[in-house]
Amino acid sequence: MNPPIPVLTAPRRNLPKAVTLAHGGGGSAMRDLIDEVFIETFKGTKGAPEDQARFDLAALMAQGDRLAFTTDGFVVDPLFFPGGDIGKLAVCGTINDLAVGGARPVALSCAVIIEEGLALDTLRAVARSMAETAGAAGVPIVTGDTKVVARGACDKLFITTTGIGVVRTGVEVGIARARPGDVVLVNGQLGDHGAAILNARGDLALESDIASDCAALHGLIDRLIDAAPGVRMMRDATRGGVAAVLNELAAASGVGVRLRESDTPIRADVQGFCEILGLDPLYLANEGKIVAVVPPEQEGAALQALRAHPLGGGAAAIGRITDTRPGRVVMETRFGGERIVDMLVGDQLPRIC
Amino acid sequence: MNPPIPVLTAPRRNLPKAVTLAHGGGGSAMRDLIDEVFIETFKGTKGAPEDQARFDLAALMAQGDRLAFTTDGFVVDPLFFPGGDIGKLAVCGTINDLAVGGARPVALSCAVIIEEGLALDTLRAVARSMAETAGAAGVPIVTGDTKVVARGACDKLFITTTGIGVVRTGVEVGIARARPGDVVLVNGQLGDHGAAILNARGDLALESDIASDCAALHGLIDRLIDAAPGVRMMRDATRGGVAAVLNELAAASGVGVRLRESDTPIRADVQGFCEILGLDPLYLANEGKIVAVVPPEQEGAALQALRAHPLGGGAAAIGRITDTRPGRVVMETRFGGERIVDMLVGDQLPRIC
Repeated sequence: MNPPIPVLTAPRRNLPKAVTLAHGGGGSAMRDLIDEVFIETFKGTKGAPEDQARFDLAALMAQGDRLAFTTDGFVVDPLFFPGGDIGKLAVCGTINDLAVGGARPVALSCAVIIEEGLALDTLRAVARSMAETAGAAGVPIVTGDTKVVARGACDKLFITTTGIGVVRTGVEVGIARARPGDVVLVNGQLGDHGAAILNARGDLALESDIASDCAALHGLIDRLIDAAPGVRMMRDATRGGVAAVLNELAAASGVGVRLRESDTPIRADVQGFCEILGLDPLYLANEGKIVAVVPPEQEGAALQALRAHPLGGGAAAIGRITDTRPGRVVMETRFGGERIVDMLVGDQLPRIC
Repeated sequence: MNPPIPVLTAPRRNLPKAVTLAHGGGGSAMRDLIDEVFIETFKGTKGAPEDQARFDLAALMAQGDRLAFTTDGFVVDPLFFPGGDIGKLAVCGTINDLAVGGARPVALSCAVIIEEGLALDTLRAVARSMAETAGAAGVPIVTGDTKVVARGACDKLFITTTGIGVVRTGVEVGIARARPGDVVLVNGQLGDHGAAILNARGDLALESDIASDCAALHGLIDRLIDAAPGVRMMRDATRGGVAAVLNELAAASGVGVRLRESDTPIRADVQGFCEILGLDPLYLANEGKIVAVVPPEQEGAALQALRAHPLGGGAAAIGRITDTRPGRVVMETRFGGERIVDMLVGDQLPRIC
């Protein structure tokens, strides 16, 4: 029973410069990595990361009557891009998923899968970014998991965040709740994230200052709900862009959507970038933009609330829900024509988030 | 604004035989994949998978006063092995994480990262296994996310499950709560999962019937807590095996642990397998085994409760907590000697779970 035990070697309490398989093994190397890179870093979020987190249910009930629970995996390539990185994206993405459901985010978990050989400084930078984003958002990262796979078995780093939140009392939002006459709002210019990622991949060598719009929108959404409590649905326009959200909405609500190109806010440089590449910004991913549908009598209050928030300065009403052509999204072009904004089968870009 | 849009092609409502990048793109191909493979399959768990799940907080409070929240990534290689597969493992692993913290599992989320080219039949088989395991456990999978990365950017399939549960009122368990005189229990033979995975990789071509012990232990743990409400700590002995759990316990509680080799249950075939390969079964991963520490006066009741459960037939008291040699785990060998069971730096095997 005492054969020599093959041990993957890594110095204790003196981390090497890159992640090794030993860091995923459940032994002291993993403990050191988790302690040094994650626990220490995430402490700043006011979380106390541990194997399993605990929340007082009475305190949650004081905030509302329903718990929300949502998860998202992040595989964005490259890990760092203008306006953000995979860590910021993983925190904002799950906060936004909670918020568009009408929930106030309470806490996040974070599970990472790391490729052997990833520089520890890279991992530290991502963890710091997660901690900063979560800290600024007031949503602690309270528990996590770390796995390491051999070189070539994953591409650098994948992160899955899961969030819990409490749904605001009285808020009922859903993809099937849009009604003819409702107004379609967005909180700013569309397509920045998708364009920034594509540009950051560097294959095109286009000179551009386009940055991702990656941001945590729960504060903005809270103001929107205050101002327009009848809001029918909200959705963050990530993969598939505004086009995918509106097509899902049209199908689920059994309504038509009529957009006005002239009212749809898109930065000139994103528009130019898309024209060069033959892309349509309506299909590009956003990471700091929501689509909200509100009843017509709340349009003014909703727009005012959005525009008063730092993340909603470019808010606009871009179209209207109709009872004609149910299931269809139609764009009125600048030139007085019309085109169908169809659901794409796939996406324009893989690994956008 | 009307350039041709490059669309990744995949037939609608007629899934191809393998996963393509379009399945991760946020468009209709992804919708079809999620609908067909996950939503339909997970319905059987009595979950109603959607973007975001909702729970009535009053109903949760009726079960206890604290919410538990835990996450785990699964990267096991191979995906299918005797006794289980990555899907079963992902469901059982997170259920067990909740249960060893004293929580009754309420629901799971499931985020998958899929390599382009993975056979859809493989994905379906994993989803079915998750659904069957979750259904049998009574813990629905209520929300999820799907990402697809290009061939070579991940190895087949990774799954992250996150769980919420309600901690049983009055239960206080923790890695720092062991006291001298306490008894160390396990619910059966050790090392089966690690040996099964290693054998399933097929490099060794050893003939063996060793199967993973992968199982959801929340029912067993519920009985254990009923019988031994003073239980100090429980931990599922996954990566790093029983040795890692006991070393963490010794360090956190500031106590020694004294094991008896003759009382430590290990199947003869696992023991033989380990001897051939120079492995120590105390360090092998288990996926259906817990270490529990109970006060001495509850040892009998705890063992009886474990043995009365189908997943605890091989339960045994394997050692005792001591005030000598704090921080150390020591094994009394069959031959009357002693050896230190140290914390490994890494693991014996990568991608064991």
